[in-house]
Amino acid sequence: MQPIVHYQQIVSDYFTTTSLEKEPVNLYQPIQYILSLGGKRMRPVLTLMSADIFGADCREALPAAIAVEMFHNFSLVHDDIMDDAPLRRGNQTVHEKWNLNTGILSGDAMLILAYQYFEEYEPEIFRSLAKLFSKTALEVCEGQQWDVDFEQRNDVTEPEYLKMIEYKTAVLVGAAMKMGAIVAKTSGENCDLIYNFGLNLGIAFQLQDDYLDAFGDPATFGKQIGGDIIENKKTYLYLKAIAQANEYEKENLLQWFSVQPEDHDDKVVAVKNIFRHTGADTTTKQAIEDYTYKAFATLEKLDISDDKKALLKNFGESLMQRNV
Amino acid sequence: MQPIVHYQQIVSDYFTTTSLEKEPVNLYQPIQYILSLGGKRMRPVLTLMSADIFGADCREALPAAIAVEMFHNFSLVHDDIMDDAPLRRGNQTVHEKWNLNTGILSGDAMLILAYQYFEEYEPEIFRSLAKLFSKTALEVCEGQQWDVDFEQRNDVTEPEYLKMIEYKTAVLVGAAMKMGAIVAKTSGENCDLIYNFGLNLGIAFQLQDDYLDAFGDPATFGKQIGGDIIENKKTYLYLKAIAQANEYEKENLLQWFSVQPEDHDDKVVAVKNIFRHTGADTTTKQAIEDYTYKAFATLEKLDISDDKKALLKNFGESLMQRNV
Repeated sequence: MQPIVHYQQIVSDYFTTTSLEKEPVNLYQPIQYILSLGGKRMRPVLTLMSADIFGADCREALPAAIAVEMFHNFSLVHDDIMDDAPLRRGNQTVHEKWNLNTGILSGDAMLILAYQYFEEYEPEIFRSLAKLFSKTALEVCEGQQWDVDFEQRNDVTEPEYLKMIEYKTAVLVGAAMKMGAIVAKTSGENCDLIYNFGLNLGIAFQLQDDYLDAFGDPATFGKQIGGDIIENKKTYLYLKAIAQANEYEKENLLQWFSVQPEDHDDKVVAVKNIFRHTGADTTTKQAIEDYTYKAFATLEKLDISDDKKALLKNFGESLMQRNV
Repeated sequence: MQPIVHYQQIVSDYFTTTSLEKEPVNLYQPIQYILSLGGKRMRPVLTLMSADIFGADCREALPAAIAVEMFHNFSLVHDDIMDDAPLRRGNQTVHEKWNLNTGILSGDAMLILAYQYFEEYEPEIFRSLAKLFSKTALEVCEGQQWDVDFEQRNDVTEPEYLKMIEYKTAVLVGAAMKMGAIVAKTSGENCDLIYNFGLNLGIAFQLQDDYLDAFGDPATFGKQIGGDIIENKKTYLYLKAIAQANEYEKENLLQWFSVQPEDHDDKVVAVKNIFRHTGADTTTKQAIEDYTYKAFATLEKLDISDDKKALLKNFGESLMQRNV
């Protein structure tokens, strides 16, 4: 296993040396655009790393890794339309820079392009990868639908919320790693274990995102602190606060989440106080630790050397400390 | 080979006995809805018929046929958003009955579901089908993009227009037939020939659609006569009229295509007259015949019995006479 930057370099080299632009320009230019905005390329990196861990030349996993990144960007383009988001990675979103129809159609093309990368593999591997990909892609759609549905509901339960983030975010992390394992032709058991490692780490990461949105360091978090609170997003912190609040706190929280004041500083301070008083902050931290532990426990069962297990654990820890 | 209704029955039986509805309801209900609206199911019928022609039990081709129909409906849902169409098969479109986001996300899910049907096949067949499917699906997206682009252009050439309808419509007809051939494990040559039969018949059918939109019988065509003229659509008839017009006719046609009068009866009459005077009607009819002939010529080369060739030709003729 190599340092993360090594894998990141392989992925970014691919995108800088391969032009995706062809005719019709209005279909392919937006694809080239969104992929050129970069990001941390964490998902394709995981595919390469996983192939490496299971004894393949990580470059063999590059087409699968690019498929994962292509799919991820497809989902960003369509989600940004649904969320009416003007910006992505500090730049205009596709539907904003072009228009709605371009966003829809370029997104569709990216989903198809993702499948085409699997054609680099022989039939057995192709089928395994495409099958895992379809299952995962459908779950991501389902997760997105749950997320949309939950906005209109006030009775979302903790298991429902956990399932939503699992589908919307974590399954793709698990699948990215499993694809590397499939390309490396490791055992079915290893494939399932690395999937679960990625899945649980993905859930932990997303819960931490909820936590940091309220309690993160503005200097390092990268997003506006309190963004979820301002938008009345029913995150894990919120659900836990509602569940653990007394009557007074609950009423207070519901009141804050029924308005969107222009000057939102007071609201952010007040809601964070409720999160603390109800102990939602500590139970959320506990849940993050639980899922991280679950991920690491899965590692133990992997049929790879202890060195490699340590490296994967190390990587997981850096990810949760947001150092990668 | 069986009568068309036999294959139609198999397809419609599938959709009436198989519920696609599951959770989240807001994702899957629109899919069930659009598929229940029916239509002639011509594409999946072609897949079943082709499998039969090449010696397979046509039911073996059912998953591939359903994939084709699923993809076709995916493209309808997303195209209806792009065209802002309120109605589809006489019923509300998905984005109209639900909303924009539902249209996008349910469409995405249908594209993924289409791929999943290929999982019924062994790896070699799976890979061939999925590869053909991806190529075709991407071409359909490209065709749709050309169509959108052409609305803004006044210099579209005949070859460009033909390529657009080939990609947007005809490649899926060719692919539907080739999938049946792949499932039946016939020779690569037969696969390519039946693809070309479907492709050319698809182009002929689409050109005929352009023709009938102006000169069809209102009692049998099913759409409003003159719809393309009212919407200033640059169809094959229009391109041919522009190419064959004298200065006066050209100016006249351009004038009519620069306005959208509320009472459009005069416009439809006038434009149809120009189509006739320039001979665009006869050159269009000629092009339809040429592509139909091309399709039938391909049949001759197929390595199947003369009886089967005759049946396929018969089917092609009924299709072009719009009797099926």
